[in-house]
Amino acid sequence: MPNVQSLRCKECGRDYPQEPIYVCDFCFGPLEVNYDYDAIAKNISRESIQDGPLTIWRYDELLPASRDNAVSIGAGMTPLLKAENLGKELGLNNLWIKNDAANPTHSFKDRVVSVASTKAVEFDFDTIACASTGNLAGATAAHGAKAGMNTMVFIPSDLERGKILGAAVFGSVVLVNGNYDDVNRLCSELGDDRRWAFVNINMRPYYSEGSKSIGYELAEQLGWRAPEHVIVPVASGSLFTKVYKGLQEFAQLGIIDSADTKMHIAQPFGCSPVAKAFVEGQAHPKPVVPDTIAKSLAIGSPADGMYSVGIANKTGGSGTIVPESEISEGMKLLAETEGIFTETAGGVVISTLRRLAREGVIGPDEETVALITGTGLKTLEAIADSVETVTIDPTIRSFDEVVTGAAVS
Amino acid sequence: MPNVQSLRCKECGRDYPQEPIYVCDFCFGPLEVNYDYDAIAKNISRESIQDGPLTIWRYDELLPASRDNAVSIGAGMTPLLKAENLGKELGLNNLWIKNDAANPTHSFKDRVVSVASTKAVEFDFDTIACASTGNLAGATAAHGAKAGMNTMVFIPSDLERGKILGAAVFGSVVLVNGNYDDVNRLCSELGDDRRWAFVNINMRPYYSEGSKSIGYELAEQLGWRAPEHVIVPVASGSLFTKVYKGLQEFAQLGIIDSADTKMHIAQPFGCSPVAKAFVEGQAHPKPVVPDTIAKSLAIGSPADGMYSVGIANKTGGSGTIVPESEISEGMKLLAETEGIFTETAGGVVISTLRRLAREGVIGPDEETVALITGTGLKTLEAIADSVETVTIDPTIRSFDEVVTGAAVS
Ligand SMILES: Cc1ncc(COP(=O)(O)O)c(C=O)c1O
Ligand SMILES: Cc1ncc(COP(=O)(O)O)c(C=O)c1O
Ligand SMILES: [Zn+2]
Ligand SMILES: [Zn+2]
Repeated sequence: MPNVQSLRCKECGRDYPQEPIYVCDFCFGPLEVNYDYDAIAKNISRESIQDGPLTIWRYDELLPASRDNAVSIGAGMTPLLKAENLGKELGLNNLWIKNDAANPTHSFKDRVVSVASTKAVEFDFDTIACASTGNLAGATAAHGAKAGMNTMVFIPSDLERGKILGAAVFGSVVLVNGNYDDVNRLCSELGDDRRWAFVNINMRPYYSEGSKSIGYELAEQLGWRAPEHVIVPVASGSLFTKVYKGLQEFAQLGIIDSADTKMHIAQPFGCSPVAKAFVEGQAHPKPVVPDTIAKSLAIGSPADGMYSVGIANKTGGSGTIVPESEISEGMKLLAETEGIFTETAGGVVISTLRRLAREGVIGPDEETVALITGTGLKTLEAIADSVETVTIDPTIRSFDEVVTGAAVS
Repeated sequence: MPNVQSLRCKECGRDYPQEPIYVCDFCFGPLEVNYDYDAIAKNISRESIQDGPLTIWRYDELLPASRDNAVSIGAGMTPLLKAENLGKELGLNNLWIKNDAANPTHSFKDRVVSVASTKAVEFDFDTIACASTGNLAGATAAHGAKAGMNTMVFIPSDLERGKILGAAVFGSVVLVNGNYDDVNRLCSELGDDRRWAFVNINMRPYYSEGSKSIGYELAEQLGWRAPEHVIVPVASGSLFTKVYKGLQEFAQLGIIDSADTKMHIAQPFGCSPVAKAFVEGQAHPKPVVPDTIAKSLAIGSPADGMYSVGIANKTGGSGTIVPESEISEGMKLLAETEGIFTETAGGVVISTLRRLAREGVIGPDEETVALITGTGLKTLEAIADSVETVTIDPTIRSFDEVVTGAAVS
C-alpha cells in the first residue's frame, strides 16, 4: 500500500514492516498502521470520496489494503438517521442514529473484517479465524466464504442462538466452554503454531482500521463536519478508539474543518471495566469476569481499554455503566420511537444516551450521534419476555373479544 | 402529487381519485397508480436521481407520495453484488445478487411500507395495519413507530420466532390461528368498518409502487441498463409485477435504452399456485392451501398471480416450483459461496436459479439478477438442523482432540 509507511508501536514508536504482527518486540505495546499523510493529502478530497463505491472502500486512501483486492460483501455506508422522536423523548433536538445493523451480516464488524480479510488475501493466508463475542464470528465466516478461504471461528458456547446459527450457516463454528477472554487466550495460543489470519489477533492492526470508516461516514453524512458527541458501545475498545481516529484524520487532512467530538463510553453493568476506570479516574481498566446480557460487549480484559479511557478524558467525554435492567428498556425505547430494532449493545447505547441527556452532559441542541452497531434479530432472547402478543381466531368476533377488549396500541 | 393523475382500474381502465381505495366499483379489478409520464419526463434524469438521497426516495418522481413527507427509516439503495463464486458454481459468468436484507427491518418490505406509511400520513390516518406473512409485519410496525401512528399487525400464529418478535418489539402483534389467506380475509372484513390504513389492502395501490424501486436500483447499479434475467420470489405477485413495471418505466422515460428483461417466478413446492399456472399454461392461478417452510411466500390466493403469469409469459420468463428440501440447500449455497445469509424465500430463489442455469434457460454469459428479499436471521428454524457446530474446552488439547481430529473447514 503506497499510503502505508509501517506498523508503529503505540507505546515506544518503533517501526515494523507490514506483516501479520501485532505486538512490539521491545515493549509489548500494540502496533498500529502508520500512514504517509502527506501523500494521502495529495490524493484525497471530498469529491474523490464521493466518486468511490457505496462501501467502506470509498475511503481506501485511509485503509491499509487495496480497493482492487477488496473482499467486499457490501460493508459500509449505512444510514445516518435523524432521530426526531427519540430526541423529543430525551429533550435532544439534534440527535442522529447511525444504523450499522444495515451491514451485510447486520453488525459493524463487517467493516473490520472486510479490511482484515482483504489483507489476509494480500498476505496469502488460506485460513481466516477469529475469537468473537458473536458478531465478529458471523462477519468473519461470511467474508471467509466470499474470499474462498477456510474459516475457523471461535465463540463462547453460551451465546445467543442467532449469533451461533448466523455464523454457522457460512461454515463450521467452534463453541468454547468459557467466556470471551478464555476464547481469546486459546486463539492466541493456537495462532502461535498455525499460519492462520486471526482477524482480531495477528491481523488486529489492519482489522481495527476498518472501524475508522464509521468516523468518516459520520462526517460525510452530516455534510462534512464532526458531531459534538458520539456514544459508542465498548467491548475491547477498538471501535471507540478508531471512530475517534477517523474523525481526527479527516480534520488533519482538511476534509472537515475540525473534530472536537466528545467521545462517550457505553458499557453494561455486568462488564464495565472501561467505563469504571473512567468514572474512578484510573488510566488502566481492571480486568473483570463478565456477567451481562449484552454478550457482544462481554470482554473482561479489553485490549484497547486504556486508550479508550484516555480518549474519553482528552475529548471531555464520559463513561457510563448501564444497569442490566435498562438494556432491554433501551432496545424497546429505540424500537418504539424510531422503528429500529437493535441488539443488546444498542440497548446499552440508548440507555447511556438517556442518562447523559438527563444529567445535562449532552445539551439540548448539541449534535449527537448514537452508534447502533448490531441488530436485535441476533439477540431475541433479551426482549422475548418484555414484548407482548395476543392470539385470536380469524373472526371479527374473536378480534373484538380479545383485542378490542384488551386495548392494543 | 403532481405526477399522479389518478388511480386506474387495471381491467376496465376507469379512473378514480387518489383515495385509500383499491378495487374498481364496476368490474372489481385492482386499481393502480396512473402517472403523468410527460410531466415526469421533463423533471427526471440520471443526474436528478443521483442527486437524491440514498433511499427509495431518490426516485420520488415515480412514487405516489411526496419525498417531503417521507416516513423513512432508510429503505432502499441496498447493495447489488457481483456473485462470482456462486456464478462459478452454477456456470454463470454474469450473476448478481440484490441484497435487500440490508434494508432497515431486513426485508424488501421496508420499500413498500415506506411509501404506504407516507401516504397514510398524507391521508391523515392515525392507525396503520397489515395482514402479513411475516416480513411485512416488521416493516409496518417499524414505520408505524417512526410515524408516531398506532399499529395493528396481523400474522399467522405459526410464524418463525424472529418474524414474531422482530415485529412485536415495535408494538403489539396479533397472532391469528389460521393461514395468511385467513388473516387477509379477516383484515379485509375489519377494514370495512374501521378507518385504518391497511398497507396491503386499502393502501395497496400506493404500497405496491414501492417495489418498483428495486427495478430502478437494478438499472442504476448496473450502470443504467436492464439485466437480461431477474429471478423473483413470489407470494402475492406484487413484487414480481412491480420490478417489471419499474424497468419498463425507466425504458419508457429514456433513462435506460431498453428493458427486455426476462422475468422468472420462484415458488416453493408447498405453495406454488403462480409457478404452477405458468408451467401448465393457465392464465389464472388456482388457489391452494399453503404448506411450506418458506412461510413468507405462503399465500394460497395470490392477488397479483394472474398478472405475474402474464408478465412471465410476455417477457419469455419462466415459473419454477422448488422442492421443499432444496430451500435450505439454496440458503446454504448462497451463504457458503457469497457470504450472504438469506431467509427461506432467498433459498427458493437460489434453487430456482440453479435449475434455470442447469436447464440452459439462463445462458452462461447472460446478465442475471437474483433477488434476495429477506435475512436468514428471521428464519433460523429452517437451517438449524443442517448447520454444524462443535464444542470444546478452552485448551489446545481439547481443540486437537475434537477439531483437528474431526477436520473442520
Ligand atoms: C454489536 C457490537 N457493538 C460494539 C462492539 C464493541 O467492539 P470493540 O471490541 O471494538 O470495542 C462489539 C464487539 O464485539 C459488538 O459486537
Ligand atoms: C422475503 C419475501 N420475499 C418475497 C415476498 C413476495 O412478495 P409479494 O407478495 O409481493 O409477491 C415476500 C412477501 O411477503 C417476502 O416476505
Ligand atoms: Zn514498543
Ligand atoms: Zn374496472
